[in-house]
Amino acid sequence: MTTTITFFYLLSFFAVAIAVAFAVYLAVWVKRQPRANDTIESIGKLIHDGANTFMRKEYTLLAAFAGVTSVLIFVFLPKPIWSQDADVMKNLTMVLAYLAGTVISAITGKLGVYVATIANTKTAQAATKGIKPAFLIGFRGGSVMGLGVVSMSLLGVALVLMLVGDTTALLGFSFGASSLALFAKAGGGIFTKTADVSADLVGKVEMDIPEDDPRNPAVIADNVGDNVGDVAGMGADLFDSNVAAMAAALVIASALDKGLGINAMMVFCYAALGLIASALGIGLAKIGEHGSPTKALNTSTYVTTGIYIVLTALATLIFKDFSWRIWGASTIGLLVGVIIGITTDYFTDDSKPIVKRVAKASSTGPAFTILSGVSYGFLSVLPAMIGIAVSALAAYKLCEGMGSDYAMFGISMAAVGMLSIVGMIISNDAYGPIVDNARGLAEMGDLGEEAVRISDELDSAGNTVKAVTKGFAIGAAGLTVISLLGAYLSEVNEALLSVGKEVISVLNLTDPTVFFGMLIGAAIPAVFSAMLILGVDRNAERMVSEIRRQFREIIGLREGKAGVHADYNACINIATQGALRELIPAGLMAIGATVLVGFIGGVKAVAGFLMGNIISGLLLALFMSNAGGLWDNAKKYVEAGNEGGKGSNAHKAAVVGDTVGDPFKDTAGPSINTQITVVSLVASLLASLFIHFSIF
Amino acid sequence: MTTTITFFYLLSFFAVAIAVAFAVYLAVWVKRQPRANDTIESIGKLIHDGANTFMRKEYTLLAAFAGVTSVLIFVFLPKPIWSQDADVMKNLTMVLAYLAGTVISAITGKLGVYVATIANTKTAQAATKGIKPAFLIGFRGGSVMGLGVVSMSLLGVALVLMLVGDTTALLGFSFGASSLALFAKAGGGIFTKTADVSADLVGKVEMDIPEDDPRNPAVIADNVGDNVGDVAGMGADLFDSNVAAMAAALVIASALDKGLGINAMMVFCYAALGLIASALGIGLAKIGEHGSPTKALNTSTYVTTGIYIVLTALATLIFKDFSWRIWGASTIGLLVGVIIGITTDYFTDDSKPIVKRVAKASSTGPAFTILSGVSYGFLSVLPAMIGIAVSALAAYKLCEGMGSDYAMFGISMAAVGMLSIVGMIISNDAYGPIVDNARGLAEMGDLGEEAVRISDELDSAGNTVKAVTKGFAIGAAGLTVISLLGAYLSEVNEALLSVGKEVISVLNLTDPTVFFGMLIGAAIPAVFSAMLILGVDRNAERMVSEIRRQFREIIGLREGKAGVHADYNACINIATQGALRELIPAGLMAIGATVLVGFIGGVKAVAGFLMGNIISGLLLALFMSNAGGLWDNAKKYVEAGNEGGKGSNAHKAAVVGDTVGDPFKDTAGPSINTQITVVSLVASLLASLFIHFSIF
Repeated sequence: MTTTITFFYLLSFFAVAIAVAFAVYLAVWVKRQPRANDTIESIGKLIHDGANTFMRKEYTLLAAFAGVTSVLIFVFLPKPIWSQDADVMKNLTMVLAYLAGTVISAITGKLGVYVATIANTKTAQAATKGIKPAFLIGFRGGSVMGLGVVSMSLLGVALVLMLVGDTTALLGFSFGASSLALFAKAGGGIFTKTADVSADLVGKVEMDIPEDDPRNPAVIADNVGDNVGDVAGMGADLFDSNVAAMAAALVIASALDKGLGINAMMVFCYAALGLIASALGIGLAKIGEHGSPTKALNTSTYVTTGIYIVLTALATLIFKDFSWRIWGASTIGLLVGVIIGITTDYFTDDSKPIVKRVAKASSTGPAFTILSGVSYGFLSVLPAMIGIAVSALAAYKLCEGMGSDYAMFGISMAAVGMLSIVGMIISNDAYGPIVDNARGLAEMGDLGEEAVRISDELDSAGNTVKAVTKGFAIGAAGLTVISLLGAYLSEVNEALLSVGKEVISVLNLTDPTVFFGMLIGAAIPAVFSAMLILGVDRNAERMVSEIRRQFREIIGLREGKAGVHADYNACINIATQGALRELIPAGLMAIGATVLVGFIGGVKAVAGFLMGNIISGLLLALFMSNAGGLWDNAKKYVEAGNEGGKGSNAHKAAVVGDTVGDPFKDTAGPSINTQITVVSLVASLLASLFIHFSIF
Repeated sequence: MTTTITFFYLLSFFAVAIAVAFAVYLAVWVKRQPRANDTIESIGKLIHDGANTFMRKEYTLLAAFAGVTSVLIFVFLPKPIWSQDADVMKNLTMVLAYLAGTVISAITGKLGVYVATIANTKTAQAATKGIKPAFLIGFRGGSVMGLGVVSMSLLGVALVLMLVGDTTALLGFSFGASSLALFAKAGGGIFTKTADVSADLVGKVEMDIPEDDPRNPAVIADNVGDNVGDVAGMGADLFDSNVAAMAAALVIASALDKGLGINAMMVFCYAALGLIASALGIGLAKIGEHGSPTKALNTSTYVTTGIYIVLTALATLIFKDFSWRIWGASTIGLLVGVIIGITTDYFTDDSKPIVKRVAKASSTGPAFTILSGVSYGFLSVLPAMIGIAVSALAAYKLCEGMGSDYAMFGISMAAVGMLSIVGMIISNDAYGPIVDNARGLAEMGDLGEEAVRISDELDSAGNTVKAVTKGFAIGAAGLTVISLLGAYLSEVNEALLSVGKEVISVLNLTDPTVFFGMLIGAAIPAVFSAMLILGVDRNAERMVSEIRRQFREIIGLREGKAGVHADYNACINIATQGALRELIPAGLMAIGATVLVGFIGGVKAVAGFLMGNIISGLLLALFMSNAGGLWDNAKKYVEAGNEGGKGSNAHKAAVVGDTVGDPFKDTAGPSINTQITVVSLVASLLASLFIHFSIF
C-alpha cells in the first residue's frame, strides 16, 4: 500500500511540476510580447501599482485576521489545549496548516494579478495587429492564473497530507484558503463595484464623458477593480472551492479507508489528471484570423472536459482498485457542470431570446428592466438546482452499490470531477479582466478604431464566458458544500466516538433543533448579501464625493488640459479602505451566526444550519449572478443599436438594470460561495466544541 | 368522552353564531350610513360591478378547475377506486369535502367584497364629517370580512369533521380552500397590479393626469383591483391558512388520540376562543376626534391578543384535561406573530430610519432605490426567520415533555395560536382597500380638500398596517406549513401501515432522495414568483395599449369634456382575462413539480421537497413583501415633501422602486403562502399514490 501511496503522491507532484513549468513558460512568453506606446505603458503601470496597493493593504489586514485566528486555533483546535487528551503539537500543526492555506493562496493571487496587469497592455498593443495575437496574449495571461491556482491547491493539499498524515489538518488548510477567499472575493468585489459604479455615475451620467476616459479620477480604480475582483478574487474563490472539494473527499475517503488508502489516492489521481487535462486544453486553445473568441474559449473548455474523461477512464482501466462507479460519479459531476454552464448561457447570452426580452422591456422604463430581470433571474435557478440535485442523487445512488458508506464519497467525487477542469475555467475567467483592461487602454492610448473594435470583441466574449464560468463555479461550490456537510458529519462522529458518545447516523428533518438551524442558516446568505451590497453603496457614496471634488477643484481636468492629471490614487485608496472596512462585519456575521447556533442548538442544529445555508445560498447566488449577467448583456445589446440604441429611453433603463446587476453579479452573488464554504469549515473545525458546550 | 366532544362542537358553533350575528350587524350598520353624492355613488357602482365581473369569471374558471379536480379526487383519493380496499363512498365524501372548502371560501370572499364595495363610498362621504366616523365605517366594513372568514373556516372544519368523522376528509376540505385561495390570491394579485401599474404608467407618466382621475380608463379597474386583490385575495389566503392550521392540528391530534379526543377538542376550543377574542377586539376598536388611525388599528390588535391569551388561560384552568404546555405553545406562537409584525413595521414604516435611507438613496438615482430596497428587504427576513425558528423550537421542546409524539402537535398549536387573532388581522387588512377606494372617490367626487386629506390619512394608516399584517400572515403560514409537514408524515405513515410496510420515523437530511427533493422544492417559489411577475408584465402591456387606444380614439376624453366617458369595462375585462390566463400555468407548475418529484423520488423526496419549498418560500415571501412595502412607503415619504418632494429626481427614482415593489408585495410575495399550502396538501393527499407508484 505504501508504494501505491507514494506513486500517487509522485503523480500529483509530477502534474504540478508540468503545470508550473507551463505557467512559467506562458508568463515569460507574455512578458516578451512587444511593449505598447508610452501612454499605455504609463497607465498600465498605474493599474499595476493600484492593484498592488489594494493587495498589500488586503494582505496586511488578512495577516492581522490570520494572527487572531491562529491564536484561537492554537487554543481550541483540534482540542482545547487545557483538555486532558490535548496535544500541543497537533494544535500547532493545525495553525501551520491554516497559515499555509492562507499564504499559498495569497501568493498565487499576487502572481496571477502580476501577470494579468502585464498582459493587459500587451493585449492592447497586439490588437493593432489583429484578433489572433491579441486573443492569444489575453488568454495565455489568464492561463497563468488558472494553472497556478490548480497546481498550488493540489500541491498544498498533497504536502499537508503527506507531512501531517491527518485529514483534520486539511480542514485547517482549507479554512486558511477560505479566509483568504473571503477577503479576496468579497473585498475585491466591493472594491471593483465601488469603482465601477462611481466612475459611471459621475463620469458618464453627470459629466457626460465616455467610459475609460483618462480625465475620470476613478478610471484607474475601475481597471484595478477588474484585476483584484475578477482575477485575484475569482482565483481565490476557486482555489478555495478546489481545496475544499479535495479536503472533503479526502476526509470522507480516510474515514472509509480507516487512514490513507486507495480512495484517498483516487482523489489525488483524479485531481492530477484534471490538472494535466487543463494544461493540455490551454495549450491547444487557438483562434483563426477571423475566428470568434467566444467559440475559441468554449471549445477549449469542451476539449479539456473530453481529455479529462478519457484520462480518468484510462486510469480506471489501469489501476484495478479504482472503481468504475467512482469514475461515473466524477463524470456525471463534470457533465452536469457543463450543462449548468450552457443553461446559464441561455439566460445571459445576447444572441438568445431572454436578453432581447429584457432589452425590450427596458423601452417601457427602468421598473420593467428590473422586474423582467428579476423574473428571469428567478427562472434561471431551476436548471442549475435540478442539475445539482440530479448529479448528487445519481452519484450517491451509483456509489451506494459499493456499500452505503461510499454514497457520500460518490458525491464528493462528483464535486472533484466538476472542479477537475477548474484550471480551464479560471483561465477563461481571468481572460475577461485582461481584455477589459486592454479595451480601456486601447482607447486611452489612441491605438485607433480597429484596435478598439478588436479589443471590444474580445471583451464581449469575456463577458459571455464569464456568465458561464460563474454558473459552473456555483454548481461546483454546491456539490462541494454538500460533501463538506458529509465531512462535517464525519468530524462530528469522530468527536462523539472519542468521548464515548453515540454517533449521529441520521439528521432528522423534523427534529426541531435541525429545523431551527435550517431556518436561520437559510437567512444568512440574504443578510450577508445585503451587507455587501450596502457596503458597495456606502463606499460608492464616498468615492462619488471624491470624484466630484476633483472635477471641481483640479482646474483644467474636465477640459482635458495637457499636463493636468486626476489624482487616481485618492480613488484607489477610498475603494481599498472602504472595501476592507465593509467586508469585515459581513464575514464576522456569518461566522458568528454559525458559532451561536452551535453553542445554542448543538451539532444537529449546525447540520441544519449548513443545509439551510447551502440551499438558500445556492438559490441566491444563482439568482444574483444570472440576473446581473443578464442586465449587463441587455445593456450591451441596447448599446449595439437595438431598441433605440445609445441615448434612448431603453438605454437609460438598461443602464439602471446594469447598475443594479453590478454588485449582484460581481460582489454578492459570487461571494456567497465563499460564505458557505467558510461557514461549513468553521462548523467542521468547531464540531467537538459544540458537542461539549452547547445549551440544548 | 362523547359528551365532551359534543360540548366543544357546541362551543364552536356558539362562537360562530355570535361572530356571524355581529358581522351581520356591522354590515347592516355600514349599509345604513348616509349615501354619498351621485358622482360617487355611480363610480362606486362601477367598482362594485367591476369586482363582480372579475369574481364571476374567476369562479366560472374555478368551477371548471374544481370539476376536473373532483373527478381526479373521486378516481384516486383517498384510495384509487380500482384498488381492492377502496370505498366509493369515501372517495365521494372526499369530493364533497373538497367542494365544500371551495364553495364556502368563495361565498365568504364574495360577501366580503360586497360589503367592502359599499363601505368605500360611505367612508368617502363620512370623511366630510371628520376622521372619527370615516375610520369607523372603513374599519367595520373590513371587519365583516374578518369575522366572516374566521367563522366560516371554523364552521366548515367543525361540520366536515362532525359529519365525516375522518381527518383525511379535512385535508380535502383544506385543499378546496387552497384551490380557491390560489385563484383568488394569485389571480387577484395579477389583476390588481396589472391595473395599478398600467393606470400609473399611462395616466401619471405619459398623460400627466393625477392619480384616481376619472378620465383614466383604468381608474375603475385599479379600484376594483384593490378589492379583488386585497379584500377577496387576502381573505381567501387567510381562510386557507386558518383551515390548514386547524386541519394539520386535527390530523396530528387524531393520530395522538387514535380517533377524536381531547386534543382535537382543544383545537376547537382555542379556535372558538380566538374568534370570540377577535369579535371583542373589533367591537372595542375606536378612534378619537383627532386620533391616529394607525394607533387605533394596532391597539385593537394588541387588545385582541391580550383577550385571547386570557381566555385560553381560563379554559386551561377550567378544563383539567387541557395542558398548560399546549397553552404555552399557542401563546408563544401568538406572541412571536406579534413580534414579527413589529419587526416588519421597523423595515416599512416611514417614521423609522430604513424608509428614510431608501428615500435618500433615491436621490442618487433609481438603481440605488432598487439596491438599497433589495438589501434591506434581504435584511428584513432575519427577524421573522429567527422568530419562526425559535417559536417552532420552543413549542416543540415545551410539548415534548408530554411525550415525543406531542412535540409536532405543539408546533401545530403554535400555528393555531398565531392564527387565532386572524379575524382581527383580516379586518385591519380589508380596511386598507376600503379607505384606499374612499380616497379615490373623495377626489373624483369633489368632496373637498379636507375630506381628501382625511381619507389620505386613513389610507396611509392602511398601508402601514398592511405591511404588518403581511408579515404576520407569512409567519403564520410558516408555522402552518411546518405542521402540514407533520400532517403529511402522519398520512404517509398511515398509508405505509395500511399496506404492511415499515413507517418512516426519520427523514435523514443526508438521504439523497430527501436532498434531491429539497433542492428542487427550494427552486419552486422562485419560479412561481417569476411566472406571476412576468404575467403582470404581459398583462400590463395589453392594458397599456388599450388605455393609449382610448385616449387616442375617444375624442374629448383627455380634455375631460362633459359627457365623454372612458370605456372602463374594456380595462376591467383585459385585467380579468389576463389574470386568470397567467395564473393557471404557475399553479400547474407548482402542483406538477410536486407530483413529478413524488413519482420519481417517492415520499421521502416529497418530504424534502416540502421542506425546501417552505424554507425558500418563507425567505422569498418575506423578502418580496417587505421590500415592496418599503419602496411603497419610501415613495410616499418623498411625496410628503422629503428629498425634494414630488417631481424631484428622488421622486422619479422612488416611483421606479414602487413599481417594482408592486408585484413583489401584492402579487408574488403573498401568493407564495398559498403556493406552499397547495403543494403541502397535494403531497398529503397523494401520499399513498407516491408509495405505490414511485420510481425510487
